[in-house]
Amino acid sequence: MNFQDSRLIRALRREPTDRTPVWFMRQAGRYLPGYQRIRAGMEFLELCKNPELASEVTVEPLEVLDVDAVIIFSDILVPLEAMGLPVEFGDRGPCMSQPLTDRAGIDRLSIPDPVEETGFVMDVIRATHQRVQGKVPVLGFAGAPWTLACYALEGSPSRTFAAAQRMVYESPADLHRLMEKLADTVTSYLLAQVEAGANAIQLFDSWGGMLGHQAFEEFSLRYCRRIMEGLDGCGVPRILFIRGAASHLKQISRMVDEVGIEAVSLDEMTRPQQALDIFGDRCALQGNMPPQALFAPEESIRQRVRDLLDVFGDHPGHVFNLGHGILPPTPVDSLRAVVDEIRAPR
Amino acid sequence: MNFQDSRLIRALRREPTDRTPVWFMRQAGRYLPGYQRIRAGMEFLELCKNPELASEVTVEPLEVLDVDAVIIFSDILVPLEAMGLPVEFGDRGPCMSQPLTDRAGIDRLSIPDPVEETGFVMDVIRATHQRVQGKVPVLGFAGAPWTLACYALEGSPSRTFAAAQRMVYESPADLHRLMEKLADTVTSYLLAQVEAGANAIQLFDSWGGMLGHQAFEEFSLRYCRRIMEGLDGCGVPRILFIRGAASHLKQISRMVDEVGIEAVSLDEMTRPQQALDIFGDRCALQGNMPPQALFAPEESIRQRVRDLLDVFGDHPGHVFNLGHGILPPTPVDSLRAVVDEIRAPR
Repeated sequence: MNFQDSRLIRALRREPTDRTPVWFMRQAGRYLPGYQRIRAGMEFLELCKNPELASEVTVEPLEVLDVDAVIIFSDILVPLEAMGLPVEFGDRGPCMSQPLTDRAGIDRLSIPDPVEETGFVMDVIRATHQRVQGKVPVLGFAGAPWTLACYALEGSPSRTFAAAQRMVYESPADLHRLMEKLADTVTSYLLAQVEAGANAIQLFDSWGGMLGHQAFEEFSLRYCRRIMEGLDGCGVPRILFIRGAASHLKQISRMVDEVGIEAVSLDEMTRPQQALDIFGDRCALQGNMPPQALFAPEESIRQRVRDLLDVFGDHPGHVFNLGHGILPPTPVDSLRAVVDEIRAPR
Repeated sequence: MNFQDSRLIRALRREPTDRTPVWFMRQAGRYLPGYQRIRAGMEFLELCKNPELASEVTVEPLEVLDVDAVIIFSDILVPLEAMGLPVEFGDRGPCMSQPLTDRAGIDRLSIPDPVEETGFVMDVIRATHQRVQGKVPVLGFAGAPWTLACYALEGSPSRTFAAAQRMVYESPADLHRLMEKLADTVTSYLLAQVEAGANAIQLFDSWGGMLGHQAFEEFSLRYCRRIMEGLDGCGVPRILFIRGAASHLKQISRMVDEVGIEAVSLDEMTRPQQALDIFGDRCALQGNMPPQALFAPEESIRQRVRDLLDVFGDHPGHVFNLGHGILPPTPVDSLRAVVDEIRAPR
């Protein structure tokens, strides 16, 4: 099948589809039995670097949930490791063992050749295509510069990312230098994913929303833009996801217009009607269902799916997804109910 | 002095003042040398329960920074302990040793008599008044029900408060029962503070912004409203602070109109011009300076203060404050520069 004709890619281009496409952020993850089996034998990053098993994990949601796309199993910290920041394993997943502390550390970071340094990611994409055999498109992804900077400066996941937040004001020039290197790294990393066969890419800025409104524009949005501009003309749709940005939709919308970004993914804090009012049909809209809503009884889940289909109903580029990643204890049956409800005749 | 004539209380009532009043959230805290000295000898909650020392800590920012108000030293978890949930000390401050896990636990919670069970807080207010001798007003405060529920259900501070977030969808009726008890507890707790001499009160919903937009209205805003309605006619201005609510300003504004709330405190994610457009001069507006901006060089800090004074300049009820609490490593001189710049002739 030509991926241009797939439900997801058509929706991302705002072309008519037979029904709303659905995939889930973090759909290749801990809620799945096959994933758990494989992870029991190896560490997270080890799995990321094993194309055979990473692609097996990548396609499991296709078999279990019958989603309309797969997203490669990987981690946003992969490019940081290639830049020269060692990644290790804490209790709560991958983290940096030697966080950046000064300008010298920033200056030492390389801008890696994505194929030479992170070729295993491209291998995962190719291995995944072999497994899905044209059935659905394969998504690539990367973390946005601000989110990567949070980890690079803080080390481990944090409630506040105080080091990165402080640097915004204490040494903004150094932070900009870091952000430039991250943006260049992520741009070539995503271009390599497209080259390897990614049919669409998503840029994740998980922590953009914690910045003050001026810092948001200066450090989150600006570098997302730089990457999206760098991908212009790459031939696949670009999805922008900035978590916590519900009060910045107008600024994002302006960027969508100026850069021609194909799709915006909305977190669950965003009012869908407000997003529709602001973005109109000038880009595809994805997401918005609260990940926690999957713990509700099935009938509530189905009702919520219907409500979201109703509100986005006439939008030519609606992609069903959550407002954030699937939570590890989520019941598989809840996700099945979502997919089933989307496909129910209406 | 009659507190009705103080700069802060006049500004909260949108009456003319000689200059913009200033105080800082978490101004009685770890950045202060006197506070550190006292805390070296006792645990956090022990200090909360010692009116002599808690009032000493409360007035230290008045002496060190010459702010226009003091806010009592206490902790938002105090009422939870009185409801029957033991509070203890972890590495990162107070937390709950036995988080709520089920409906039975919720049903067991009492709605404490604030004077009998938490009379030490009222004693802190009285002892503080003795120390400030009418020089500045004394603020009381409480955590909002959603934020208290996050701690009651999770135990310790968390990046996600997954237990509370899950309960929103999994057992909303039980959560509503908990929220009602929390709202009733907080209402009588704040009324007791006013009775003891608090000249204004602030309600803190630190985690409201993490809720999906529908859950925000159902669980955060609704119970803030219930408390604010319960304080109607209590004779002192009410300040509402919901962190992460920049995309909910219209909903908050509607509540301000319907309930007559005197003041709204804005986090640093909020665009001040948007807040001015939405709230107009129908309530006082407080806050908005990023706490991390206090790590900038002094001239940048002063410029930011001038920018904020400019944008809020004509608003009849502007109260200078941060978008969140003072961070522990903040230099005292940065805060002094803020106060000094506000008082500079312009």
